[in-house]
Amino acid sequence: MPSVDRAGPPLVGGPEAGGGLPEPARRLPEPPRNRTGAPGLRKEELHGSVSDPVLDTMNFLNEVTHRYPDAVSFAPGRPYDGFFDTEDVFRHLRRYLDHLAAEGAGPEQVRSAIFQYGPTAGQIRELVADSLRKDEGIDVPPASVVVTVGCQEAMFLAVRALISGPDDVLLVSSPCYVGITGAARLLDVEVGAVEEGEKGFDCAALEAAILAERARGRRPRAFYVIPDHSNPSGTSMTLPARQELLDLAERHDILILEDSPYRMVSPGEQLPTLKSLDREHRVVHLGSYSKTLFPGTRVGFVVADQPVVDEAGNTGLLADELARIKSMLTVNTSPVSQAVTAGMLLSVDGRTSELNTRTAAYYGDAMRVTLRELDRRFPEDERGALGIGWNEPAGGFFLAVNVPFRADNAALERSAEEFGVIWTPMSYFYPQGGGESSLRLSVSYLSHEEIVDGVDRLARFVRAQTHRSG
Amino acid sequence: MPSVDRAGPPLVGGPEAGGGLPEPARRLPEPPRNRTGAPGLRKEELHGSVSDPVLDTMNFLNEVTHRYPDAVSFAPGRPYDGFFDTEDVFRHLRRYLDHLAAEGAGPEQVRSAIFQYGPTAGQIRELVADSLRKDEGIDVPPASVVVTVGCQEAMFLAVRALISGPDDVLLVSSPCYVGITGAARLLDVEVGAVEEGEKGFDCAALEAAILAERARGRRPRAFYVIPDHSNPSGTSMTLPARQELLDLAERHDILILEDSPYRMVSPGEQLPTLKSLDREHRVVHLGSYSKTLFPGTRVGFVVADQPVVDEAGNTGLLADELARIKSMLTVNTSPVSQAVTAGMLLSVDGRTSELNTRTAAYYGDAMRVTLRELDRRFPEDERGALGIGWNEPAGGFFLAVNVPFRADNAALERSAEEFGVIWTPMSYFYPQGGGESSLRLSVSYLSHEEIVDGVDRLARFVRAQTHRSG
Repeated sequence: MPSVDRAGPPLVGGPEAGGGLPEPARRLPEPPRNRTGAPGLRKEELHGSVSDPVLDTMNFLNEVTHRYPDAVSFAPGRPYDGFFDTEDVFRHLRRYLDHLAAEGAGPEQVRSAIFQYGPTAGQIRELVADSLRKDEGIDVPPASVVVTVGCQEAMFLAVRALISGPDDVLLVSSPCYVGITGAARLLDVEVGAVEEGEKGFDCAALEAAILAERARGRRPRAFYVIPDHSNPSGTSMTLPARQELLDLAERHDILILEDSPYRMVSPGEQLPTLKSLDREHRVVHLGSYSKTLFPGTRVGFVVADQPVVDEAGNTGLLADELARIKSMLTVNTSPVSQAVTAGMLLSVDGRTSELNTRTAAYYGDAMRVTLRELDRRFPEDERGALGIGWNEPAGGFFLAVNVPFRADNAALERSAEEFGVIWTPMSYFYPQGGGESSLRLSVSYLSHEEIVDGVDRLARFVRAQTHRSG
Repeated sequence: MPSVDRAGPPLVGGPEAGGGLPEPARRLPEPPRNRTGAPGLRKEELHGSVSDPVLDTMNFLNEVTHRYPDAVSFAPGRPYDGFFDTEDVFRHLRRYLDHLAAEGAGPEQVRSAIFQYGPTAGQIRELVADSLRKDEGIDVPPASVVVTVGCQEAMFLAVRALISGPDDVLLVSSPCYVGITGAARLLDVEVGAVEEGEKGFDCAALEAAILAERARGRRPRAFYVIPDHSNPSGTSMTLPARQELLDLAERHDILILEDSPYRMVSPGEQLPTLKSLDREHRVVHLGSYSKTLFPGTRVGFVVADQPVVDEAGNTGLLADELARIKSMLTVNTSPVSQAVTAGMLLSVDGRTSELNTRTAAYYGDAMRVTLRELDRRFPEDERGALGIGWNEPAGGFFLAVNVPFRADNAALERSAEEFGVIWTPMSYFYPQGGGESSLRLSVSYLSHEEIVDGVDRLARFVRAQTHRSG
């Protein structure tokens, strides 16, 4: 999933990086064969997740990007690293080890903390909980936190715990981040798409989906949503919509999986998280440090303070159950990675907002420049006739552009080849179809010059394609 | 899974560690309830993996260990960290970054390599492949390697890829490492146990299992085994047995999942890995650096050089498919962790055997002392009458002791309470029952004094329990 969403490296490439996902299947000169002369494995015999069409679309996007290296790419949701100093990693690590010593750990205990496996639920849960309280007003006990290998593992844990049989359904806001549908795909979990309206989440659509699933004999267990500056559409939920969603979850006895990676890196005041408004333990909060600290630690977390009662009447927390699942998946999150993360949290006394003043301004500027250039290239009085429009997110990495033609792979290829500009077809993000005339632009990693140039190219492409289609 | 297998921390505890797995469910003073007055979630509505009996047994073991902190514990398979210097982490990280620079990466590329997400299949695949060639004679292209979050994720990826439907079966050598059965449990994958004989793997038993599964209409896809110094039994496969297993896999068209974490940390010459003998791409090699480097990076890998042909006739590698699955699970392994691992590999030019001369001698001594003390406490001429016996592994962390009574939780509790010695019931490791009169001793983390004392306690317990049962 990395390339067109959170993880952008294959589209840019590190020093040793050969691309994020493997390249598309290729003809080997002499495929090794077994004694019977038959090839070893047939792809259709492997689990269906490896043939998920989303992966092929990502591959296609990677391939286009590799083929047109000079194109301006609005595809990758890659965080900007210009404010990061490589030496920071050493400093953060040192800070955490010093912190342990200051807290009374002897040299052998410090060594153990970095050398050994750690507790499955994580060894920096107190620091994570402290940061959530200061940054987000999310006040939960450290025992309700599980530290994960990025937010992706958090999603997997939540889906695995909540979906127990073939009648259970996961509902997702659509268009939808591919990470959650990917996790569901690995588990053969059925996903029900709840269409966003023009303004994002629509409570009536969710309620209708819940009732429709129930009518089919299915049990909707949870609803996944990015309330702030969503990936891919850039929409945010209003405060009343947040309240309405919480009430709905309570009324219909479902959980909400809240994913919110873009809040701290967006300019200005943010609305409260669903979790901070949650009085009934309806929200499982999925956390990422990939935008607020840095992606290279692969540290995320999940907050799951829901009480779970077993048959004997004993009560634990959903976090305990998620840790059990994690013990069978990755055992524990790297203590080295956790140490670097912890050192970074300690450097600002848990206030990641302080670390992100500059980055939030940077991304905010990029979004403003993009919107300004779109305005400039498509004057308001022409838009109706052209059939083009876009939303105006106040933050995050993404915006959605509606176009008067099919924004499909063929269009993307033409855009890259003839106009030197790459974007992501929004249809990639619709689990059950949709978004055919829309595309996603990511603004997180381009310079202002690249944005100006890129929107110019995009505008020329859109006009040419409209002309061609019309 | 961490506590009694590879990951021992909950049984010892780091500075911030509150235990590996969560503590058993407890009564909260006032469990939060929703408006209907019903508790939020019922455990039996969650996925069955969280109620896996193996987890409860691990919990029980953790609990006993916490309750009797002064007992000598032969339970955790925790690596010894006495030869590790905390500062090594900084040095390894620096070495890798210097290596990137020496290879031509500019400062911004070095920053990207540590800051950003990395390629899904890993950014240190060349170094891993180089090390496998030098250490193990495993000669595979870097493209067949996927770097994983410990060996546990490697297991999950392999099981997910190979098991595509309800008729597919995973066979495992039994008694069996709980990591592989845990991964299968998460995916509702059926596991068929193939009983070890006294001397370990038995080819006839595997063939019989394959035929029996086929007769039931099932498709055995792969067989999981630890050929060297197995966890939990300590047995190793002979060279003829290895060859026989490879032939059998070819004949019956199954893959072998080879897990081999203890080779480099065992004294003396090792037999060749299955993978190094594999001429027909039958072996998927699951790799761990937790014993040979250190567990705190959580870096493992999988070698999957099997050709996979899609319906269009294009050939890729199984590693490509595993990377696809990883993209939906953890996106990529932490570049920070990979960097530390890479620096450590670079420090010995890929020869992890050189890093492990001292540790292998240390573990070898611990095993010898344990066997010597067992000999001393149970003179040979008494063993038959007592009904006690044990195997004599040439390496690894574990040995199996047969006793003339049920080595169950009640016995364990009595052993801890009255005799101050803790061990792991072997029955925990039998997916389909067995091992009731056997226990596992782990020798990796105890000092010689503790071993002497612990075996003395164990001998007194065994004699008392035998008397009581008899």
